[in-house]
Amino acid sequence: MAVAVIDALAAGLPADALTTDPDVIEGYRRDRAMTAEPGTPVALVRPADTAQVQTTMRIATAHGVPVVPRGAGTGLSGGATAVEGAITLSTERLRHCEIDPTSMLAVVGPGLFNAEVKAAAAAHGLWYPPDPSSFEICSIGGNLATNAGGLCCVKYGVTTDYVLGLEVVLADGSLVRLGGRTIKDVAGLDLKRLFVGSEGTLGIITGATLRLRPAAPAVDTVVATFAGVADAGRAVARVVGEVRPSALELMDRAAVAAVERVRPMGLDADIGALLLAQGEGGSAESARIATACEEAGATYAAVSADPEQGEMLMAARRMAIPCVERLGTVMIEDVGVPVPRIPELLERVAGISERHTTAIPVIGHAGDGNFHPLVTFDPQDAEAAARARVAFDEVMDAALDLGGTVTGEHGVGTLKTRHLEAQVGPEVMALSRRIKQALDPDGILNPGKWL
Amino acid sequence: MAVAVIDALAAGLPADALTTDPDVIEGYRRDRAMTAEPGTPVALVRPADTAQVQTTMRIATAHGVPVVPRGAGTGLSGGATAVEGAITLSTERLRHCEIDPTSMLAVVGPGLFNAEVKAAAAAHGLWYPPDPSSFEICSIGGNLATNAGGLCCVKYGVTTDYVLGLEVVLADGSLVRLGGRTIKDVAGLDLKRLFVGSEGTLGIITGATLRLRPAAPAVDTVVATFAGVADAGRAVARVVGEVRPSALELMDRAAVAAVERVRPMGLDADIGALLLAQGEGGSAESARIATACEEAGATYAAVSADPEQGEMLMAARRMAIPCVERLGTVMIEDVGVPVPRIPELLERVAGISERHTTAIPVIGHAGDGNFHPLVTFDPQDAEAAARARVAFDEVMDAALDLGGTVTGEHGVGTLKTRHLEAQVGPEVMALSRRIKQALDPDGILNPGKWL
Repeated sequence: MAVAVIDALAAGLPADALTTDPDVIEGYRRDRAMTAEPGTPVALVRPADTAQVQTTMRIATAHGVPVVPRGAGTGLSGGATAVEGAITLSTERLRHCEIDPTSMLAVVGPGLFNAEVKAAAAAHGLWYPPDPSSFEICSIGGNLATNAGGLCCVKYGVTTDYVLGLEVVLADGSLVRLGGRTIKDVAGLDLKRLFVGSEGTLGIITGATLRLRPAAPAVDTVVATFAGVADAGRAVARVVGEVRPSALELMDRAAVAAVERVRPMGLDADIGALLLAQGEGGSAESARIATACEEAGATYAAVSADPEQGEMLMAARRMAIPCVERLGTVMIEDVGVPVPRIPELLERVAGISERHTTAIPVIGHAGDGNFHPLVTFDPQDAEAAARARVAFDEVMDAALDLGGTVTGEHGVGTLKTRHLEAQVGPEVMALSRRIKQALDPDGILNPGKWL
Repeated sequence: MAVAVIDALAAGLPADALTTDPDVIEGYRRDRAMTAEPGTPVALVRPADTAQVQTTMRIATAHGVPVVPRGAGTGLSGGATAVEGAITLSTERLRHCEIDPTSMLAVVGPGLFNAEVKAAAAAHGLWYPPDPSSFEICSIGGNLATNAGGLCCVKYGVTTDYVLGLEVVLADGSLVRLGGRTIKDVAGLDLKRLFVGSEGTLGIITGATLRLRPAAPAVDTVVATFAGVADAGRAVARVVGEVRPSALELMDRAAVAAVERVRPMGLDADIGALLLAQGEGGSAESARIATACEEAGATYAAVSADPEQGEMLMAARRMAIPCVERLGTVMIEDVGVPVPRIPELLERVAGISERHTTAIPVIGHAGDGNFHPLVTFDPQDAEAAARARVAFDEVMDAALDLGGTVTGEHGVGTLKTRHLEAQVGPEVMALSRRIKQALDPDGILNPGKWL
């Protein structure tokens, strides 16, 4: 079967779109979910256009061979992890980019990096807001597949909020164009948003029309420190109850320490947690944020109107995951809870860390209740790894127990399959499978993951 | 068959949830799409709770009898128009309402009016933004079914942007709970948003968890008048290219005149079009809006910081449809185009009006490119009615020709079925029907409409 499908791909695709070289394929087996075990693809397809994606899907359907779509491979949940014997299809060469400044939209290929879309928009004085911390190296296709978030979501929403139109190749190779260039459009089912966040299980996104905004206004940055994480959590609820910050990020003591080791910011090593907020409402708004932090027990709160200082602090926050990864293998949580439950979540994570003798530095998009406890362990120590796996599960159980989610922005992938069913229940899983069955009756799109 | 299903409903439901009285049923045959021809239901079910909705759907499935769900009957496209021989299910009694002020969300039944949700939120200093002009008499269930918009959408988004969770009864009577209370949640498919805007074709929404915001900030109101509608259209693109107004509404000369007749505002009858903008960015922002209007050729532009005056102007805008309805039978368009195409759309509508000797006053949520040309005719004049029907179709054709949509916020219903297929094409219709088939295999939910 493997030989037959490779022959068919070789006959149907240009030579530069297909490789079976194991050395090349090796680089496409994993994403950044380091603990997900990948299979080995039979072939890697890198289509140069939508028609080549259609050809690949028609051949895959004809031969009953699964297809794993992938973007830039920065996913954190294993959604792009290779499946044994499947075709891996990388969208990296689908890189068209048209900015329509008067309509304030971008028509892009999934292979562009998020930062490239931002830069293309900025060249016209416009802004594409969604900003995963990996924005310089993650692709728009991956952002769409996971409905990626980021720091500005608390005010500006997530990827799906910017999607006006999608071009999608279905499992059988047919092509659909969903939505368009109109801002408000309720003509028919909202199919665009069914594909956004579906992690390659329903179709392959080959193009997107994205809404842009006028350039972001100037921001003030507020830094506040707290003796304990629960205090910082309480401050979050106070802040979002009063104003709409454009970022509201949390780092706990261990996360601050990990970043300080790599990029010293002169932060007090003795703090329990740090909140970083940005606001566009001028000095009155930033003063309200600082006051809200103080009223929640901040040990220190200060406002800076200096854009460079603000960007330095935000860059430090975005560096947290790679900095913590220097300490060991990291299993990245992505839990979310309703904002009032944040203090409880943070206390429970601290308890889990202590109980399992496992370091779990915490960072998070606190304003949305979305946290990334970073379950960290020495990969050489089998017992530590086992403890970490238990801790990883317990953090998700804690989020669910608090009415939350196991994934706020990274997706389910391979790492959270079990936890998804615990969260949504068998009825919603059954409904999801009915939709999967309707769109991909042979189950060839990204199989063995969560759907 | 009719007798058997009525007997089964009578056996399964409390007496107060079922009626077959033709006089009562008469009031549930239409929504506000006056030109849609309704059938006569075999029964009207008004369930008091979700379990009664489930019972109704199980009985309907067992007997193969269709069900037309309806909210408050203010729909403008005929989505709730009764189907001959079907059960009409009104969600009017599903009126639970819980505000969670610390999580900033509302857990509501679909039978609440939009204004009741706003009021309940306001009692806690919070705000539910979506604001269809009919907000005082339209239900949240209908808002969800059509993905309703309104005036504040240009800054604050539409109904789907506020949905954190949904409770839905499927065609077979099974119940699913989608999403929850967490702001960011990408666990599994985004099924919530598949049901929002599906106009009762995929399931019956029996409850929703809606995101709330802090109370709206104070606004300035900008009024600008123009010699022609195309000038006003050009001003819209200038304004949204610079700032994010919280409302940006257009009324043409005929719409202004219709409102002036009912509620005189002392507006110059000689204007070609009026723009009404609101902004939350203080006097600097409102001055920028006024300047942008002047640069686009406004004959007059003024800023008011008086909230009463601002609300009076916005109330006048919201009254436009009922005021125009005094002039004849109105077929309400709901077209949308990309913002730069607004001047062309408005010019084409004027041409269609002239060519078919049919009055078409125009109002619209101009900042989103969403317009309601009001195709108006004397119902006693058969020739005028025929001309109006041609004009109605031509306005939608014009929107499609400009890359737009036949419905920005009102839905497809029964009036725009043909136009939907022209817009999205056969592939997307086929995909939509695959999803319909997966969720409602017997096709009993709101049949004979667009899906």
